[in-house]
Amino acid sequence: MKISIQILFITAFLLIYQKTTAQDGYKLWLRYDQITNPELLDEFQATIGTYTVSGTSPTHQIIRNELELALPQLLGKPISAADDGSILITKNHPKFISDLKDLGEDGYLIKKVDDQIIVTSDSDIGLLYGTFGLLRHLQTQQSIKTIDIVSQPKIQRRILNHWDNLDRTSERGYAGFSIWDWHKLPLYIDQRYLDYARANASIGINGAVLTNVNANALILTPSYLEKVKALADAFRPYGIKVYLTARFSAPIEIGGLETADPLNDEVINWWNEKVEEVYNYIPDFGGFLVKANSEGQPGPQNYGRSHAEGANMLAKALQPFNGIVMWRAFVYSNEEPEDRAKQAYNEFMPLDGKFEENVVIQVKNGAIDFQPREPFHPLFGAMKQTPLAMEFQITQEYLGQATQLVYLAPMYKEVLDSDTYAKGEGSEVSKTIDGTLYNHDVSAIAGVANIGTDLNWTGHPFAQANWYTFGRLAWDHSLSSESIADEWIQMTWSQQKAELETIKELMMTSWPASVNYMTPLGLHHLMGTGHHYGPAPWVDNLPRADWNPVYYHKATADGIGFDRTRTGSDAVDQYFPAVSNVFNDPNKCPEKYLLWFHHLSWDYEMKSGNTLWNEIALRYQKGIDQVRNMQAKWNSLEDAIDPKRHTQVKMLLYIQEQEAIWWKDACLLYFQQFSDRAIPDTVEPPEKTLTYYKSLRFPYAPGH
Amino acid sequence: MKISIQILFITAFLLIYQKTTAQDGYKLWLRYDQITNPELLDEFQATIGTYTVSGTSPTHQIIRNELELALPQLLGKPISAADDGSILITKNHPKFISDLKDLGEDGYLIKKVDDQIIVTSDSDIGLLYGTFGLLRHLQTQQSIKTIDIVSQPKIQRRILNHWDNLDRTSERGYAGFSIWDWHKLPLYIDQRYLDYARANASIGINGAVLTNVNANALILTPSYLEKVKALADAFRPYGIKVYLTARFSAPIEIGGLETADPLNDEVINWWNEKVEEVYNYIPDFGGFLVKANSEGQPGPQNYGRSHAEGANMLAKALQPFNGIVMWRAFVYSNEEPEDRAKQAYNEFMPLDGKFEENVVIQVKNGAIDFQPREPFHPLFGAMKQTPLAMEFQITQEYLGQATQLVYLAPMYKEVLDSDTYAKGEGSEVSKTIDGTLYNHDVSAIAGVANIGTDLNWTGHPFAQANWYTFGRLAWDHSLSSESIADEWIQMTWSQQKAELETIKELMMTSWPASVNYMTPLGLHHLMGTGHHYGPAPWVDNLPRADWNPVYYHKATADGIGFDRTRTGSDAVDQYFPAVSNVFNDPNKCPEKYLLWFHHLSWDYEMKSGNTLWNEIALRYQKGIDQVRNMQAKWNSLEDAIDPKRHTQVKMLLYIQEQEAIWWKDACLLYFQQFSDRAIPDTVEPPEKTLTYYKSLRFPYAPGH
Repeated sequence: MKISIQILFITAFLLIYQKTTAQDGYKLWLRYDQITNPELLDEFQATIGTYTVSGTSPTHQIIRNELELALPQLLGKPISAADDGSILITKNHPKFISDLKDLGEDGYLIKKVDDQIIVTSDSDIGLLYGTFGLLRHLQTQQSIKTIDIVSQPKIQRRILNHWDNLDRTSERGYAGFSIWDWHKLPLYIDQRYLDYARANASIGINGAVLTNVNANALILTPSYLEKVKALADAFRPYGIKVYLTARFSAPIEIGGLETADPLNDEVINWWNEKVEEVYNYIPDFGGFLVKANSEGQPGPQNYGRSHAEGANMLAKALQPFNGIVMWRAFVYSNEEPEDRAKQAYNEFMPLDGKFEENVVIQVKNGAIDFQPREPFHPLFGAMKQTPLAMEFQITQEYLGQATQLVYLAPMYKEVLDSDTYAKGEGSEVSKTIDGTLYNHDVSAIAGVANIGTDLNWTGHPFAQANWYTFGRLAWDHSLSSESIADEWIQMTWSQQKAELETIKELMMTSWPASVNYMTPLGLHHLMGTGHHYGPAPWVDNLPRADWNPVYYHKATADGIGFDRTRTGSDAVDQYFPAVSNVFNDPNKCPEKYLLWFHHLSWDYEMKSGNTLWNEIALRYQKGIDQVRNMQAKWNSLEDAIDPKRHTQVKMLLYIQEQEAIWWKDACLLYFQQFSDRAIPDTVEPPEKTLTYYKSLRFPYAPGH
Repeated sequence: MKISIQILFITAFLLIYQKTTAQDGYKLWLRYDQITNPELLDEFQATIGTYTVSGTSPTHQIIRNELELALPQLLGKPISAADDGSILITKNHPKFISDLKDLGEDGYLIKKVDDQIIVTSDSDIGLLYGTFGLLRHLQTQQSIKTIDIVSQPKIQRRILNHWDNLDRTSERGYAGFSIWDWHKLPLYIDQRYLDYARANASIGINGAVLTNVNANALILTPSYLEKVKALADAFRPYGIKVYLTARFSAPIEIGGLETADPLNDEVINWWNEKVEEVYNYIPDFGGFLVKANSEGQPGPQNYGRSHAEGANMLAKALQPFNGIVMWRAFVYSNEEPEDRAKQAYNEFMPLDGKFEENVVIQVKNGAIDFQPREPFHPLFGAMKQTPLAMEFQITQEYLGQATQLVYLAPMYKEVLDSDTYAKGEGSEVSKTIDGTLYNHDVSAIAGVANIGTDLNWTGHPFAQANWYTFGRLAWDHSLSSESIADEWIQMTWSQQKAELETIKELMMTSWPASVNYMTPLGLHHLMGTGHHYGPAPWVDNLPRADWNPVYYHKATADGIGFDRTRTGSDAVDQYFPAVSNVFNDPNKCPEKYLLWFHHLSWDYEMKSGNTLWNEIALRYQKGIDQVRNMQAKWNSLEDAIDPKRHTQVKMLLYIQEQEAIWWKDACLLYFQQFSDRAIPDTVEPPEKTLTYYKSLRFPYAPGH
């Protein structure tokens, strides 16, 4: 009797302890809370008592650490290593040699054989991925009675791009500052580096470009290469390769040459030697990411050379070491009168076939610049002889930054699932980047990271979902937004079905909501100058025409929208006919892209029967209503979520509501000057005047 | 039987769980690990079962939360609230009304009465301090059988100075960036703000200047005042008042006036209205900290007015609201040929008696600028009619920044315990700032914070000790360095006596070591330009003479040191005769200050019998040896400390050793050019050449 009471006490103590060790978000989706479903817990406890990891490499040790951390917590009982454990993690298990043959380095199998769960792969890193795959399976409450998983990534190089500067500021970073503490490297390995690598490994990310695309040549000097080497050494056991951005003018800035002309022998030689030096430090260095002749960055065109000539010079230097060049297609010229949306295509299409084999052209998802919604970039499918990498933005530059909850999976999916019709129906964008459409050997996908020094890594607790999503889609772009949300929510917030569904609905609403209250119906680039925080559709005085919001919305008394039809800039014809014919016709063009491709009168009749003006106004209001609905959903979870994180998200959703109202008011008041029409009654009247909204300044807004 | 096994299992599980929840340092000294001493644990468990907090204010709730968090962990058993708990926390307990009378607002009593531990005070904040006092008593393993504590602070205003900019960079910050996320304020209250306030409350810090002394007037505009108000509201229940830095030219920059002349009516009026506005937002606003006519900051002298005229204008505006002005004495002039060490005294002494009653002159501990070791500032004791505040630097600008372990308590204590002889023997510096020597009503002490966005708050895990020390000495400057270390180590690292002693020895060695390997024997300001990272005694080309290291060491063929004797700059005579007569005589002057006050030949004979040159060289070597001793001590604790933090400190101590060697080599090679003498055999020969050390550049060193 006395003993039973003691057990009760200990249990009560555990509950208290759990309650008081409040979540700060640092653990991401690797919380490993105990399984709450009693049947599943019974099953897991009965099945798993010990584990075996055969091997002694650092990666094996990481696997061991992960199991030691995860299993006792998930199962609520001690789990120990054993000689022939109920989980066996081993390379090239003899039973599955033939199955492993086609899985490549990163692929893995998880199979139940008699009473044992076997995780096997062709490589140590594959075992690590398999381990995380098994743990995810447990975390997402799936039976292991007959577990049978075969998994391999669809894209080879799954890379985060950190737009981080050497002074630790982060361009478009909204979660504090860069986690790379360059000053303390190489001798101090911050715990963050290991936790970062571990989180990436758990979702299959296998590369990191450490430095900003607006590059600093100093990163290629010995004192910095020593630091980069230290990071590469720390990341290697987690399967993460390090990449750097190459400043095209580095031969001048740190090499003492007078030119950076890619056809100049001294320049070629300098890069050859520099690359060899880099590989002396980091034998498995991944390669260079280059932003050239774009927004002021130097490039081959400074010397009358083409992007291909520039990229190939670097590519040849990297070839002996199996490195690659990721050359960005994000170029648009000041002096070019052409529609900015067309310029990358015009620049790169003629170069198709002229790149070395280890060059990948990295293309943003849309033709402008990470807007809340863009049609897919016309280069996808169009360039046939050159592998293209997708560049998604995970950090929310134009999508509410760190104060708005916007789940980006549906946006990524909309692009990946878009059909380019490059080889007829079924030529989705995803197939143009995973190498299957044109049989390319190299495949890559990049995500501009949203990771910073904030305690919870990403600023907004829900922004973690976008990091997670990028990794999961990079591994398997066929996953649905809903299924990724399912996984992430269970690992991050709650295992309870009802709560899971509520959070998922909230997440699935969030991107459409943000498009509605910021840039509905194909509007784009209405954001504040420089920092891109908040609405500023009135800005018309920036030195480059295509930096001004007025360039994009073209609102006048006669209507609104950018005419990219055949009678306008003809951007539509950069797409294959099955697509361009749809985009070109306002009656066929999906309304979500309408003002991206068409300039229409304020009275243009929408499918709803509303005039365009009214529809715009109603969309802004709808966005606000959707946010309020998200708030209501979140508030309903007050008792279900740990109080700190619940309060955090509640505060942020309130900010999101306020910012949505600000967007509606500023945009409608501004556009009303041209439409000269009343705001519909069902739309809340503006809270302040246009003059007020135009007066707002944010000199220290983050990330720029 | 089955049940017993279950208990064993649960216990084993708990041990594993504890092991895996590795320490990242975020919890600071508030870890509340279970008491390991079995007798004490028995005693605590037998005495404490419940607690009572009478009251419902936010501060009472904070007290409740702290007890709920701390007690179950410390005692390893459930503790609950009750009507008449074994701990009773209540204001003005009737039994102790008379004892409380003299304790002031912040003081508290902790008394055992029968079976109950009573914590009582005159105020809610006093109860909070008392609660933390009781928890510290438990954490530091002291019996509570007859607990009887009476405590009250010796200094009223115990203030952190954050040199944080609105863009979140932090001047002289080495732990990442500012924790004030201005962009997300006022609507988002970061968990860090509350954890910061709680940590401060636990050591009695009751004020925070949020902004850099190199000030930005924008902080006084409405959009920022809203943000400041949000922080003030968050801090208030923790007893922390908010202060701001006032940019003297704010009336011009944000007020639209043409002058900031403190005698101009419009300016006076502007500040009066601005102060009223500030108090409308923050009714308990603490006041302004001002750096004026110092290092380019604007001030009253721009208009031919004195520091007193400038300070008094602000003071009068603050008087109706009981705010204060903290006016910094850190002034030195470009155009002034006088020894920089003398300038603050010369500037401020004539103004003694001319300041309003709510002006405090904030004086750095020494006359130059937070050097590794400085004699106390001659203004202490000299200004009699004006309250002086001590300004210590907690952030290690000149003391190894975030890569060196330097426990600063002995440095603070050396200054606080120095006797000024202002009113004869026993006129210690501490009495000149706590108000007792000259019976001032206002007393204040400031510490330039070392807090940033790093996971562990302070970058170096041991830098937490300096934050802790500042708070504890601000409360009671009679505490010894050893006793503060005792407390902090037990709460942060280990309760085991042997480990505690090892860590304490290591800490107590660290400051003398750093003085030895950086600036032995009174040398000062030999650090790299701008960032102050590493040695650069050769620098002689900065635009202001007194920014150059050569200004300070004055090494020539004939010797080294700054002659501040009566035949030199006569800085010694700013001290009272009992002090100046000692400092003036090289035979009496403590060798630790020798080259601060004397220029001596390389062959000058030291007390050791060594020549000065040899002694300098041996001191540098001794510093390195001391660091190696610290390393050995730390390595001996490998099994006693959680592996993450042990590894972190190990890496940092290695960096410290390398930096100590760098200091020795760079300084000795440089000074050797003048001494033209051999480095003694017992000193390790330099690893590289002077040319190499002079070539080092750190363009992105943090904090400047």
